[in-house]
Amino acid sequence: MLRIHTVAPDVPVILDAKDMDIGNTNTGYVRMAFEYCQADAITINPYLGMEAAQPFLDQKDKGIIVLCRTSNKGSGEFQDLLIKSDMPLYQYVASRVAKYWNKNGNCALVVGATYPNELAQVRRIVGDMPILIPGIGVQGGDVEATVKAGRDSRGQGMIINASRSIIFASNGPDFAEAARRETLKLHNLINQYRNA
Amino acid sequence: MLRIHTVAPDVPVILDAKDMDIGNTNTGYVRMAFEYCQADAITINPYLGMEAAQPFLDQKDKGIIVLCRTSNKGSGEFQDLLIKSDMPLYQYVASRVAKYWNKNGNCALVVGATYPNELAQVRRIVGDMPILIPGIGVQGGDVEATVKAGRDSRGQGMIINASRSIIFASNGPDFAEAARRETLKLHNLINQYRNA
Repeated sequence: MLRIHTVAPDVPVILDAKDMDIGNTNTGYVRMAFEYCQADAITINPYLGMEAAQPFLDQKDKGIIVLCRTSNKGSGEFQDLLIKSDMPLYQYVASRVAKYWNKNGNCALVVGATYPNELAQVRRIVGDMPILIPGIGVQGGDVEATVKAGRDSRGQGMIINASRSIIFASNGPDFAEAARRETLKLHNLINQYRNA
Repeated sequence: MLRIHTVAPDVPVILDAKDMDIGNTNTGYVRMAFEYCQADAITINPYLGMEAAQPFLDQKDKGIIVLCRTSNKGSGEFQDLLIKSDMPLYQYVASRVAKYWNKNGNCALVVGATYPNELAQVRRIVGDMPILIPGIGVQGGDVEATVKAGRDSRGQGMIINASRSIIFASNGPDFAEAARRETLKLHNLINQYRNA
């Protein structure tokens, strides 16, 4: 079992594996993620389509978080391609996940904080579906722009992730306090803009 | 070190990980695949684009095999979308990899044997670039159609993969002989059509 569940049993664990393979192999990934690692949610890559993703989508009590518009600088190479009456691919992925993949109500999408305009577009398409938002911190995403673009109708619906800016906040013996300080700073900043 | 290199040092090992993340994380995947596992090649997912894939592409003496048209039944959901003057996405991926990603001459593409027409299209686009072809065997791809569609100008350029039809050829104590028998059968069938 993943140690984090021993340390903090109530903290939901997202396995950011970006897994995706044919169905037979995904069945193995499901066992790895949810039986062996005891994760609560997983990130997956949409390129192989819903039919391949079915073993993930069938996990009714687990979160299935689909890459949509990723936070990296060059994510537009394929994700921005215009398809079907001029809709970019990432928006088409969002609409397919919202309309067809989410039969069990367990889906979310990944949209990078480094793209607030695209984040607003995805929010418009998916209603109150949760969005996992990486790219705050080292990757340079702006918290105010992110929260204003990403919040749902209740000022919620965002899982905003920061990794390196928190876990590497200090290399010294104060690493734990430094990580807590950075976490609280981000936490307060997010809440400041949720209903602003 | 991966045991297969101990057992058969001259057999090239393809790690079918279908990895892809932002660049910083891919740097870790590169170490995992090529330092820890000692693999010779890896499969990657194109959705995040070339900029994210750079840590893989920089491995000049390793094979980088990009998913293009995957073998699963529902692979067309996104891969068949028409973009840029009616070219399907999987063909656009093929053309980008051939033209830009392959600066080090270390790239290949994954195209499923379950789609021989699409395989012929990709071969037309990429010239003599190698193509990794899964989907023979349990997934039902036809060897003759595959080889005729996938061979390059020299009757080569294909890595045709079969997994379950070989490793599960027998559950009995003759499993090793059964696996060898299936392998040789496939080997001979492929060679029969290479120049036919």
